[in-house]
Amino acid sequence: MLTTCTKGTSARIGSAGPRVPCVPVTPEEFRQNGYALIDWITDYVEGIEAFPVVNPELKPGDVRASLPAHPPSATEPFDAVLRDLDAVILPGITHWQHPSFFAYFPSNASYSSILGELTSAGLGVQGMSWITSPACTEVETLMLDWMQELLGLPQRFRSDSATGGGVIQGSASEATLAAILAARWRATSGQVNHDGDTSTLVAYATTQSHSSIEKGLRIAGIGVERMRIVPVDQHYAMRVDELTRMMAADIGAGLTPFFVCATHGTTSSTAFDPTAEIAAVCHANNAWLHVDAAMSGIAALAPEYRWVNNGLELADSYCTNPHKWMGVNFDCDLFWTADRAALLGALSILPEYLRSQAAESGAVIDYRDWQVPLGRRFRSLKLWFTIRCDGIESIQAMIREHVRLTELLAQWVEADSRFEIVAPHPLNLLCLRLREGNEATDSLIERTNLTGKALFTRTVLNSQSTLRFSIGSRLTTERHVLEAWRLLQSLAQ
Amino acid sequence: MLTTCTKGTSARIGSAGPRVPCVPVTPEEFRQNGYALIDWITDYVEGIEAFPVVNPELKPGDVRASLPAHPPSATEPFDAVLRDLDAVILPGITHWQHPSFFAYFPSNASYSSILGELTSAGLGVQGMSWITSPACTEVETLMLDWMQELLGLPQRFRSDSATGGGVIQGSASEATLAAILAARWRATSGQVNHDGDTSTLVAYATTQSHSSIEKGLRIAGIGVERMRIVPVDQHYAMRVDELTRMMAADIGAGLTPFFVCATHGTTSSTAFDPTAEIAAVCHANNAWLHVDAAMSGIAALAPEYRWVNNGLELADSYCTNPHKWMGVNFDCDLFWTADRAALLGALSILPEYLRSQAAESGAVIDYRDWQVPLGRRFRSLKLWFTIRCDGIESIQAMIREHVRLTELLAQWVEADSRFEIVAPHPLNLLCLRLREGNEATDSLIERTNLTGKALFTRTVLNSQSTLRFSIGSRLTTERHVLEAWRLLQSLAQ
Repeated sequence: MLTTCTKGTSARIGSAGPRVPCVPVTPEEFRQNGYALIDWITDYVEGIEAFPVVNPELKPGDVRASLPAHPPSATEPFDAVLRDLDAVILPGITHWQHPSFFAYFPSNASYSSILGELTSAGLGVQGMSWITSPACTEVETLMLDWMQELLGLPQRFRSDSATGGGVIQGSASEATLAAILAARWRATSGQVNHDGDTSTLVAYATTQSHSSIEKGLRIAGIGVERMRIVPVDQHYAMRVDELTRMMAADIGAGLTPFFVCATHGTTSSTAFDPTAEIAAVCHANNAWLHVDAAMSGIAALAPEYRWVNNGLELADSYCTNPHKWMGVNFDCDLFWTADRAALLGALSILPEYLRSQAAESGAVIDYRDWQVPLGRRFRSLKLWFTIRCDGIESIQAMIREHVRLTELLAQWVEADSRFEIVAPHPLNLLCLRLREGNEATDSLIERTNLTGKALFTRTVLNSQSTLRFSIGSRLTTERHVLEAWRLLQSLAQ
Repeated sequence: MLTTCTKGTSARIGSAGPRVPCVPVTPEEFRQNGYALIDWITDYVEGIEAFPVVNPELKPGDVRASLPAHPPSATEPFDAVLRDLDAVILPGITHWQHPSFFAYFPSNASYSSILGELTSAGLGVQGMSWITSPACTEVETLMLDWMQELLGLPQRFRSDSATGGGVIQGSASEATLAAILAARWRATSGQVNHDGDTSTLVAYATTQSHSSIEKGLRIAGIGVERMRIVPVDQHYAMRVDELTRMMAADIGAGLTPFFVCATHGTTSSTAFDPTAEIAAVCHANNAWLHVDAAMSGIAALAPEYRWVNNGLELADSYCTNPHKWMGVNFDCDLFWTADRAALLGALSILPEYLRSQAAESGAVIDYRDWQVPLGRRFRSLKLWFTIRCDGIESIQAMIREHVRLTELLAQWVEADSRFEIVAPHPLNLLCLRLREGNEATDSLIERTNLTGKALFTRTVLNSQSTLRFSIGSRLTTERHVLEAWRLLQSLAQ
């Protein structure tokens, strides 16, 4: 049955003598290749400052052009792959782990979490149902309960509470969509599963809410015509008087407010919506309140920042991302709801080939019914490894240091009259601009990024171009912030 | 700023002397822990036959009860984690990599793909936009084009075709949802993004279609009242005469057929819908045709099974899963469309903080607009590593061997008059039952699984309980199939 292989003849790490045709990588080769890759990753992370944060010379198509247009007909030794990682991949990526990466949001991959991901890949189990790998479900449930404790979240989100529970989603976008679907189900008493009728449902967010809100609503059949953009105050937080007014107008028009998204730490400027007041309005009108704390919620690991949880007591759902500021590599979004029945109503489907006694007895959780996909891997391992081996205290120390550096940076910026700070900076993001105007600010961002010495992203606040200085890499120290600030100062000339 | 750590005092692998308080795992510890974990994974995979496929004694809650109810206050050495992997996790999982795992679907994690996943975690980059890590996008695009070649798929799915392209989704469920959303957008000329009105849209699938079709439709606001279940023929394939009739009736009632899902290799029995004929009906009525080949499409890697692609020439979208039968660890679903404009219309949203010159020039792909989530990791690495290091010939050999074993098994089953084969078995799944009836068949499955010596799942075909014998683990040999068959024979007494 086997055809003759044309396996590459160059030396394979760990190989001895001629290889059997058509045999994939052997266990002994895996060991040797694995050690080599562990070394390669260590050397990459520890030497990351040698790279520009981005390669300013890279043009669209360059990476592809440097790789074979067609798949290989012979196998290759692993050292050829390692060579390509060095020659093609490293010059072709944006180094999110770089200490001078101040763009977008933190996206740390701690050493512990990398090993958690490796373990998940090595086990290769599916956690779609409890029965398909009980530990995959039970460790995840436990980790969500541990995190409820560590973050100081409401008890009603715990899996051992009467109506709540938590689950790992791939991203905050998926958590938001799950919340919208649960809200849609509850607002229609489940009827939406039958008739798909969303024509009277209205959702509320602000100009500062993440784009995933609009995307999730669109997916769920709530067009932008029924998404209300609630105005924000001077600090970019939702105006509850406007929310109240808009909801009343919608109800008066025969519509049904079904979903409100409050944000704890907006992407553009770390604004915090007044969730306690929003919750009261939602409660009075039977609307689902989802709180998106993707970036900032992890700050609650340090007790002095636990104010980031303010108002959560009446929220129906909540999410925050260990894959942003906690060091757990992507993907790991924690999503909790106080109304698991609505989530299950929206997402559970049970074909014959997925039935099990365990599930039908109600004794177990089948996480496939808590998410859009069916399949799921053992993602809780990386959270478990990080909590146990890095320890919460080291993460608290990192968070505190990033907040301290942001405050320090703010002092430096205030001392340079060419710049101004354009939004409150309660945590690890500073929004600044050149007083000279939008064009000067945009140009400064562009010229800075072209140096490869630091990376920033741009946003628009109150119609003004704004440079976001996001401090969140686990490798960032005061030196990196200072050098980046001096670079901005020098290029602002 | 640092508080005093209560770091565990037991020896940490690679540590020398007292540790600095609050410092996470160090590079040298990562190296040593990483080597140890590589060894642990190798030993696990190579020794996997020592485990029961499932632990028949495990009860709901057992895993959680054996772990601390509350998070640790001190860090722990990595060897404590490794001990828990042995003591708690391995007895608590279902061993999907086990050679006697014949349940659900194949879910192989080849050694090469495990290292691809490790590399992705180690790099820790985000591929949501081209600009956020160009190589993450460009390698993925190239891999989809390589796979188009290797599978012999239509040219119109290639990224360098006029209107098509491919992307890695997390699962076939997500691919299906993406297809539904693109179809919904096209059928409404994009209007659905504004008014969310899906009230005239009708979708078509069969009783044998995967549950993710109904789930995806439900999410997209198409209730079950507008999902038509097209009858199947005696081989569980869609009846095109019925599809034609149902579509005509719906059009007559003022409705709009917008989406048809054909399956190439159904979950229950590997049935193949007659896609060429279905495509003609779709084409005549402007309905989007999605083809779901999650489990079986990978067979096309071997030229003699390329008939699994029959009819794809007129499909609007297609998906198949390297994380099932190709050895690439979950998650890796390949999704292609011939109409990327519809997909982008459905899923693209551009806030200020995600703008880039590269994207606005149209010179690059931003994969965030091809999927539900925003974030995405470097998943193409595991496909790249597998193709290069395991080689397509070894995967072809594995697929051929699984098909041979299925044929052999069918001969054995036919020789035992107590059993009957209840569906065609063109590839690697045999559906069988005891002639005695449903109760006997259900009991046989249950008693077999309780032995821990093999694992099967059950389905229902034509109202009859059916045992699915799915042969797809890369470690499965003739001995394992024979032993499992003899076990079934002995327990059928």
